[in-house]
Amino acid sequence: MPESSIAVLQNLATQLRIDSVRSTTAAGSGHPTTCLSAAEIMAAVFFAEMRFDPRDPQHPEADRFVLSKGHAAPILYAAWAAAGAFPREDVMQLRELSSDLEGHPTPRLSFVDVATGSLGQGLAAGVGIALNARRIESDYRTYVLMGDGESAEGSVWEAAQVAAFHKLDNLCAITDVNGFGQSRATQFAHDADAFMSRWKAFGWHVIGINGHDMAQVLAAFKEARQTTGRPTMIVASTLKGKGVKLFEDKDNWHGKALKKGAEADAAIAELEAQYIKTNDPAPVIPKPAQRRSEGALPNFSKALPTPAYKLGDVVATREAYGTALAALGAIDRRVVALDSDVKNSTFSERFEKVYPDRFYQMFIAEQVMVGAAMGLAARGAIAFPSSFACFLERAGDFVRMAGISNLNIKLAGSHAGVSIGEDGPSQMALEDLAMFRGVPNCTVFYPSDAMSAERLMALAADTHGPVYIRTTRPKTPVIYEASESFVAGGSKTIRQSDRDAVTVVAAGVTLFEALKAHDVLAAEGTAIRVIDLYSVQPVDRAGLIAAGRATNGRIITVEDHYAHGGIGDAVSEAVWDQGFKVQRLAVREIPRSGPPDVLIDKYGISGRAIVEAVRALVTT
Amino acid sequence: MPESSIAVLQNLATQLRIDSVRSTTAAGSGHPTTCLSAAEIMAAVFFAEMRFDPRDPQHPEADRFVLSKGHAAPILYAAWAAAGAFPREDVMQLRELSSDLEGHPTPRLSFVDVATGSLGQGLAAGVGIALNARRIESDYRTYVLMGDGESAEGSVWEAAQVAAFHKLDNLCAITDVNGFGQSRATQFAHDADAFMSRWKAFGWHVIGINGHDMAQVLAAFKEARQTTGRPTMIVASTLKGKGVKLFEDKDNWHGKALKKGAEADAAIAELEAQYIKTNDPAPVIPKPAQRRSEGALPNFSKALPTPAYKLGDVVATREAYGTALAALGAIDRRVVALDSDVKNSTFSERFEKVYPDRFYQMFIAEQVMVGAAMGLAARGAIAFPSSFACFLERAGDFVRMAGISNLNIKLAGSHAGVSIGEDGPSQMALEDLAMFRGVPNCTVFYPSDAMSAERLMALAADTHGPVYIRTTRPKTPVIYEASESFVAGGSKTIRQSDRDAVTVVAAGVTLFEALKAHDVLAAEGTAIRVIDLYSVQPVDRAGLIAAGRATNGRIITVEDHYAHGGIGDAVSEAVWDQGFKVQRLAVREIPRSGPPDVLIDKYGISGRAIVEAVRALVTT
Repeated sequence: MPESSIAVLQNLATQLRIDSVRSTTAAGSGHPTTCLSAAEIMAAVFFAEMRFDPRDPQHPEADRFVLSKGHAAPILYAAWAAAGAFPREDVMQLRELSSDLEGHPTPRLSFVDVATGSLGQGLAAGVGIALNARRIESDYRTYVLMGDGESAEGSVWEAAQVAAFHKLDNLCAITDVNGFGQSRATQFAHDADAFMSRWKAFGWHVIGINGHDMAQVLAAFKEARQTTGRPTMIVASTLKGKGVKLFEDKDNWHGKALKKGAEADAAIAELEAQYIKTNDPAPVIPKPAQRRSEGALPNFSKALPTPAYKLGDVVATREAYGTALAALGAIDRRVVALDSDVKNSTFSERFEKVYPDRFYQMFIAEQVMVGAAMGLAARGAIAFPSSFACFLERAGDFVRMAGISNLNIKLAGSHAGVSIGEDGPSQMALEDLAMFRGVPNCTVFYPSDAMSAERLMALAADTHGPVYIRTTRPKTPVIYEASESFVAGGSKTIRQSDRDAVTVVAAGVTLFEALKAHDVLAAEGTAIRVIDLYSVQPVDRAGLIAAGRATNGRIITVEDHYAHGGIGDAVSEAVWDQGFKVQRLAVREIPRSGPPDVLIDKYGISGRAIVEAVRALVTT
Repeated sequence: MPESSIAVLQNLATQLRIDSVRSTTAAGSGHPTTCLSAAEIMAAVFFAEMRFDPRDPQHPEADRFVLSKGHAAPILYAAWAAAGAFPREDVMQLRELSSDLEGHPTPRLSFVDVATGSLGQGLAAGVGIALNARRIESDYRTYVLMGDGESAEGSVWEAAQVAAFHKLDNLCAITDVNGFGQSRATQFAHDADAFMSRWKAFGWHVIGINGHDMAQVLAAFKEARQTTGRPTMIVASTLKGKGVKLFEDKDNWHGKALKKGAEADAAIAELEAQYIKTNDPAPVIPKPAQRRSEGALPNFSKALPTPAYKLGDVVATREAYGTALAALGAIDRRVVALDSDVKNSTFSERFEKVYPDRFYQMFIAEQVMVGAAMGLAARGAIAFPSSFACFLERAGDFVRMAGISNLNIKLAGSHAGVSIGEDGPSQMALEDLAMFRGVPNCTVFYPSDAMSAERLMALAADTHGPVYIRTTRPKTPVIYEASESFVAGGSKTIRQSDRDAVTVVAAGVTLFEALKAHDVLAAEGTAIRVIDLYSVQPVDRAGLIAAGRATNGRIITVEDHYAHGGIGDAVSEAVWDQGFKVQRLAVREIPRSGPPDVLIDKYGISGRAIVEAVRALVTT
């Protein structure tokens, strides 16, 4: 790299600093100081390291950049503008409602793969993006810029160990050690060695540099590119607010824009004085390798082999999940699966057995499992991470960000509810439906039998965006023929007559409790309608209203879930304008260990409980 | 430690192995193999290391033991039985509904401080328990037994760094490196060095031992006790299933009980043959230091100084939170606060300024913040961890386990909803009410003004168990006089007349939107009732039913939260048997950056939106 280019790159760093100050001042908010510490790194990675096409950021062979320290968004926007992705002056629309240049980056922008701004998530996404390069046999490289403060997040260390385990030498992260968090110095301040020793212990190749010395920055990227068998961490010692004396290396400047007028003008003048005179040519960004396409997506629902179950077979939906996952894997190689060391409980091991190269073991680390799935999905994979449903909550904030990113991930949670039995409350998911319904663009499926589980798996693969599939530990009887079809927002009426007194809405294990109640009540002359609400989000508003109208406006919901945020609330909202009575049978206290059937009854979601509720309701 | 005692301790280890096999076989499920790898460690810590009183496990000066690898519950129960806490034969009730010896430990048992079974949480709780020793100036020590598999959880490394930062030399953890996870070998299998180098890099004193060599185990505990200025990690190389050849060091035996009859009998005979003949006396467990009491808890609501706000003052509820937190700290020294580097946004810095010794900085690591709060609360503190509400989701699984433990923690989340404005969706909590309502024993407060915020803070301190307080970024006007009182399960009717057409239920920023709507509608001749639902859980069923009945069964809820799991669902469920129409105004898509007022209107929760909804509803 000739000396002259360093001058050009340094000038680009200065330009990025100026634009970060200008845009945040125009917005009246934002984080200029965290941008300024990273200016040399950003200039180097965008104009001397990555191969990409600024006009086609989603090119499948392009190197990837993830801004994990998402509050440095202004310098990300400044860099893409400098590269030619959009006019430089557009950065002045930062944080305006009409602009996609939001306070933190989201994939509304074509050059953003995953939304960041919840700190500590970028590296996990980077792991997934790097795994995807291996999946598509591409030599694209993945760069992740992290803050020192966010390195306190455990998810960073989950990603660290997974990247080392999978020997991701196509992954290069940079920690911008500027020493300050939001409210104070970080725990290590300017002690770069503290970071270096940690990353070394976690199996990474580690390079320590002065992050404001362009030659050192360039040399570090070169060394990273030449490192094989493990990922590289560049620990860059920097100063927050570098280049503007007012706030350089000073506390209490986090998240504060300079005031319009004298304050900002002085800072910009100070930065402009840092331009170096040079006649060196502008850098040329190398183009990515030739585009290869993975082709149009198949119709998974059509392609799925007909499940071989017969009515009355007894099969757990989690087992059907595993069978379907393997079948989807055969249909298209974009289907990948991720596990957190429970593959023999979730049955994702059935996928691993046939497609070990597309099965990613994350060990007991749900955050990186979901984060890596986000990265894979951002690069074209259809990613199926699965675990016990309750442990997916460990990754709740990743799920939230996956929703903001509208990524094509399909989460599956097994072992839902008290029906798991003796393992006790720590292993029971009783709030997972609430969590996934709380992601507005997330489809939520809850199959009751193996047949619908397989069909809904194919439908999940066909549905763009986040999908959650809830599966059950105990075996349940197959109730659907292979000819039955399922749609997002649909439901199935399993029992009905023209004199039904109450509609009972159930899913999963409680559907079979509702069927028991149906028979007991029938014997005493009371007919009930039984609905399988396999699609919890979106929900079958028209079907529920019709059923409610046919049953005197009386609906009972019954779910192996807490009363909040699940099926009861979904049904209640769907029929809000009807003046119906929607009674929720659900778990209402912290449960304990015991046999599944005993717990289902003890917590009020058994056939007996439904019978009692129906009897009480028809007399009101 | 004389040689003879080693024989006695080894025999105790054998007894614990036998009881672990017997109890899991009797239960027909459970995890014998993970118990057997830890038998020497358990025997040593219970019978040669800890000072405690088996008849009084909650003695405030007793050493503490946390079983982070909670699935090894059978050996925990066997150890307490061997120590005399309950009859040895009671271990045979493992996992029965009538027994508190559940599949994983919960504080239903007097010797359990925090529920475990969601892996990777025990050390964070241990950090809190160790911090509490410092708070009460006790020399009790804290021991945490961890699995090698669970060390993949990022929360472990959050706890690691915080323990080192706070120099917790009263904390000793043990990693049981038996090499196997649930479904396969762990990523490091029997490579103890991989663990040792990581813990060293994270600033711990590290001791590597053969975990089945009792002399080495004892020596390690002694060395840990003599280590000052940093916590100690004992990395113990072990064999899963040690002592029973059938499954010793074998894969595919995780979570499997031996079959009753020949299989279990042979294993027990094999273990019994391992007893060593000795006449050495049984060990004597040293008693804890003399009991000191912190006294009865005060009535915080009575003791809180009258807030100095006047009607119409404009103060953010997050600021009132900080003011009240400092005031509560003055009332009782059991009040402690924890931060994840946002103290200047949540205003918990007001507490730090006056009580720095009871303010615990966790840096950007929400899991250990909540986990340490759980540990502190388990030992008598009233712990207030706070962050941006959206980032508390990072600790969702800890919150779930805090609910199972029914711990006295008071979480506060600031920056709720789209009203934060320009920072964009990654910083907006729109599912936090759903998360906390999904903990059945969690009280949820959502103050609208500074006066109620302070009162509700005192009420939170007076309420045993988990409490969540949601605060708001923008300033809101004070609407309550100091004489106003607030109760869990209460609400306030802010506007009413005898001809109200609709009840509008709001809280936080939307209350002021409801007031705007009230005035607009009043001008056109439509009266509405406006309710401040400051207590979202429990909810004022009687008040809501009365209001609904007075307003033609029409209720509109309006909240700066997604439509799922929040105020709308809470109200709807409360009035389910009334046949009311409950319309939910809430955020229904992923929002974007923009000015707060613009976003509140764009996402349909503004005064204008309420006016339109009322107009439409009164014509139906």
